[in-house]
Amino acid sequence: MKTIDLNCDFGERFGVYRLGQEEILSYVTSVNIACGFHAGDPLVMRETVQLAIRHGVAIGAHPGFPDLLGFGRRMMAVSPEEVYAYVVYQIGALSAFVKAEGGVMTHVKPHGALYNMAATDAALAKAVAKAVRDVDPGLVLYGLAGSELIRAGQAHGLRTASEAFADRTYQADGALTPRNCREAVIVDEEEAIRQVLMIVRERRVRSVQGTEVAIDADTICVHGDNEQAVRFARRLHAALQNEGIAVRPISPIDKAAGGT
Amino acid sequence: MKTIDLNCDFGERFGVYRLGQEEILSYVTSVNIACGFHAGDPLVMRETVQLAIRHGVAIGAHPGFPDLLGFGRRMMAVSPEEVYAYVVYQIGALSAFVKAEGGVMTHVKPHGALYNMAATDAALAKAVAKAVRDVDPGLVLYGLAGSELIRAGQAHGLRTASEAFADRTYQADGALTPRNCREAVIVDEEEAIRQVLMIVRERRVRSVQGTEVAIDADTICVHGDNEQAVRFARRLHAALQNEGIAVRPISPIDKAAGGT
Amino acid sequence: MKTIDLNCDFGERFGVYRLGQEEILSYVTSVNIACGFHAGDPLVMRETVQLAIRHGVAIGAHPGFPDLLGFGRRMMAVSPEEVYAYVVYQIGALSAFVKAEGGVMTHVKPHGALYNMAATDAALAKAVAKAVRDVDPGLVLYGLAGSELIRAGQAHGLRTASEAFADRTYQADGALTPRNCREAVIVDEEEAIRQVLMIVRERRVRSVQGTEVAIDADTICVHGDNEQAVRFARRLHAALQNEGIAVRPISPIDKAAGGT
Amino acid sequence: MKTIDLNCDFGERFGVYRLGQEEILSYVTSVNIACGFHAGDPLVMRETVQLAIRHGVAIGAHPGFPDLLGFGRRMMAVSPEEVYAYVVYQIGALSAFVKAEGGVMTHVKPHGALYNMAATDAALAKAVAKAVRDVDPGLVLYGLAGSELIRAGQAHGLRTASEAFADRTYQADGALTPRNCREAVIVDEEEAIRQVLMIVRERRVRSVQGTEVAIDADTICVHGDNEQAVRFARRLHAALQNEGIAVRPISPIDKAAGGT
Repeated sequence: MKTIDLNCDFGERFGVYRLGQEEILSYVTSVNIACGFHAGDPLVMRETVQLAIRHGVAIGAHPGFPDLLGFGRRMMAVSPEEVYAYVVYQIGALSAFVKAEGGVMTHVKPHGALYNMAATDAALAKAVAKAVRDVDPGLVLYGLAGSELIRAGQAHGLRTASEAFADRTYQADGALTPRNCREAVIVDEEEAIRQVLMIVRERRVRSVQGTEVAIDADTICVHGDNEQAVRFARRLHAALQNEGIAVRPISPIDKAAGGT
Repeated sequence: MKTIDLNCDFGERFGVYRLGQEEILSYVTSVNIACGFHAGDPLVMRETVQLAIRHGVAIGAHPGFPDLLGFGRRMMAVSPEEVYAYVVYQIGALSAFVKAEGGVMTHVKPHGALYNMAATDAALAKAVAKAVRDVDPGLVLYGLAGSELIRAGQAHGLRTASEAFADRTYQADGALTPRNCREAVIVDEEEAIRQVLMIVRERRVRSVQGTEVAIDADTICVHGDNEQAVRFARRLHAALQNEGIAVRPISPIDKAAGGT
Repeated sequence: MKTIDLNCDFGERFGVYRLGQEEILSYVTSVNIACGFHAGDPLVMRETVQLAIRHGVAIGAHPGFPDLLGFGRRMMAVSPEEVYAYVVYQIGALSAFVKAEGGVMTHVKPHGALYNMAATDAALAKAVAKAVRDVDPGLVLYGLAGSELIRAGQAHGLRTASEAFADRTYQADGALTPRNCREAVIVDEEEAIRQVLMIVRERRVRSVQGTEVAIDADTICVHGDNEQAVRFARRLHAALQNEGIAVRPISPIDKAAGGT
Repeated sequence: MKTIDLNCDFGERFGVYRLGQEEILSYVTSVNIACGFHAGDPLVMRETVQLAIRHGVAIGAHPGFPDLLGFGRRMMAVSPEEVYAYVVYQIGALSAFVKAEGGVMTHVKPHGALYNMAATDAALAKAVAKAVRDVDPGLVLYGLAGSELIRAGQAHGLRTASEAFADRTYQADGALTPRNCREAVIVDEEEAIRQVLMIVRERRVRSVQGTEVAIDADTICVHGDNEQAVRFARRLHAALQNEGIAVRPISPIDKAAGGT
């Protein structure tokens, strides 16, 4: 039986500011929780961990750049040493809340510009992978399918989860279409669902050039920012189940990485 | 044989800014490492943990208020829930560096205004103690001798370390003389050393009123900010050894709290 | 003909985070714009100033504590020197956007904990008033009616605007009922409108003790956070006009303080 | 008679952290004051403006990226709109302190990564120039000699000041040797002084390739971080005077830009 993980970023509130819909936790199997650098704050992190445990979803750290103003989306000329330290710090901070609530942290997925830079920059990818391994080698490292980050995770002995996107198009070489291109985003929900089903069942995706490209995805990224995104996640979850595909976290939660 | 711990705050640099003298690590047995809220940053925390391990001193977290501008010295009207979350977050962040470097975290000492507020405010003291216990019940909680924080630590089943000061005077009721009083600080180094020796050997301190007050101290706070402070720490360390008092961390480092 | 100013805080977004309803600008005559300390950021400030100019409302700075995490609502033990510098900085930052957009800044209203502390602490009130005067003596200082801040503004030669609240109750001594009291907030919209009409027409307010207290209000604080608040502002604005009360900013905008 | 301006960055302290030597103010004619983004805080800015006025040096804003952790030295993928807003904000904040102290702001020099990016990125250069002009068209814009920033300043009708460096080498095409090259920095003080004298007297500089390149410099950048830097500035100042070169600010301070 085929299985797939659905993951979304969560806990991206800050202070009085709201963001995200709790309902998304009914449709995803893993959440990536902001750790206070690009979003999130200690109170928010605690509540988010409590919510995730209550919903039985796998908990991951979602470390980002120290750029609250830019929501961690702006590339920064950081050194591998800085990236290493930022990732260690943020994993540690979140893991303390997980431990205090009696939960288990299962994975790490870098956020925004850090995710993108670590997809193509081998030195930064290595810094992220080393940080994850040094804090807890049992953690699963999430990264873009086919990226430097996945390679670095494997080279550091980590279990990795290759990520594909429901709402983004792919190029003939397997890369994501850059966001500034017209056809970067899939607006039609049916089409997005078809893409996910093809990825999960056939391990292939149709590129914008019309060719079919191999893609190896363990997890699909969905969003929980607004009601429309939640509705899509619900539809996607139902479509997967209808096709006999099990929607499951990467690691069984009760046997997950124990050390942190 | 009498023993005492000498502790100092360390790792209070930030970005390009320097603060603190590495030499202090030769004279203290425990350091309290800033965790990025009032001072410290991820790169600094890593380097500080490496230094502490190399010098064989006990490593503790030094959580403070989110007030970099005020160095965590300004009282803030925070709720117990906020304090709890701030302390969990900061212990977790530091513990990840300690783990990555193969060290062991042994204790927690709140910083500045958080230390002072938790000394007298039972609700905040309880929030700090609960945070420490929830992250790692093997951690020793440092607090002002006779304070609410020490009481809360004991009530939460934590081992506590009562702290006395070398360079601060005491009132007849055992409280520290407030900093805005003329005689709050002991400037004369000989006098400061005499005070510490009396505290360690006799468990008493002479108040500014002239009376002797009982004080139960497991650790003495010294400073490492400048060369004069380091010189004093060296003298104090020598004076204690001359008197046959062993200068030792609270827990043997190799048997310290293992969970975090 | 009686006149009153309706003011609200505005521009309290930050980065990706939204807060506030633009529609409120149709019902108020003055806005207090967050300056980047407790909320707001440079992009938001620019857009907010553009909006305010487009709607023809009077523009004021809304300086707060450097506490983004706590939205500037938490009291902090700041010195008068710190408060002075924080207010100068924030007025200056906003005034540059106002100047760049060809507008005029008319007033300053401290935010949150700074507003509350400056209402009762004469030294902080003086620091705020001095900051406003030193940057631009033509600015109107908004403060709680009867507060130390209003007194300090007058002592520094500033024009002041005494503020009353539509949705807060008053004590027999003229003070606001503290927020932690059950009857602090007026939930019933009719009652809130009646209170405003009484304040404007009779310069008196009925206290929770049942007595009538003199109150001298130049401006009424309303909120623009959510749709309900906007609806109330619309009703209040209509009620004032129905009673023949002119809703107008404190200074005619085209003759406002020119220097900044 | 030939004249030259000596400028240095100043006021880069933050909170308890120290940086910079006041003595540098005896040898430079212009200072660029940090505005709280990459360094500086409101208290520091006030004290720095007071010092600058007391020493009679020209006061400029030194806006940087919102990256306190990286001291504004890390390139960030910011948009022109963001840069515009950051520069307006920071000029405004500093100008309020200058006004409150009865001084005059004369110029703006971007800091670190913003300076470097605006030297080569025309869109960012334009954003900086537009921000300066919109806040006060009388301000002089400092930029790297021959850079996009100087061009953008001229295109926006601003007076510009082309900057050369005493301690950096130049390439045959007039560009600075990148910092990661071995010969980027001139360590020998005599050689640095010779370079400045050649730039001022002959409007040429000898490149690392051995050729002579035309350079048009109105101001020379020196540093005030440590005692060695201050000693060099003193020697350079003396050498310039010995050669009959007047060390003077760009604009006579008493006739400087009046509006802000």
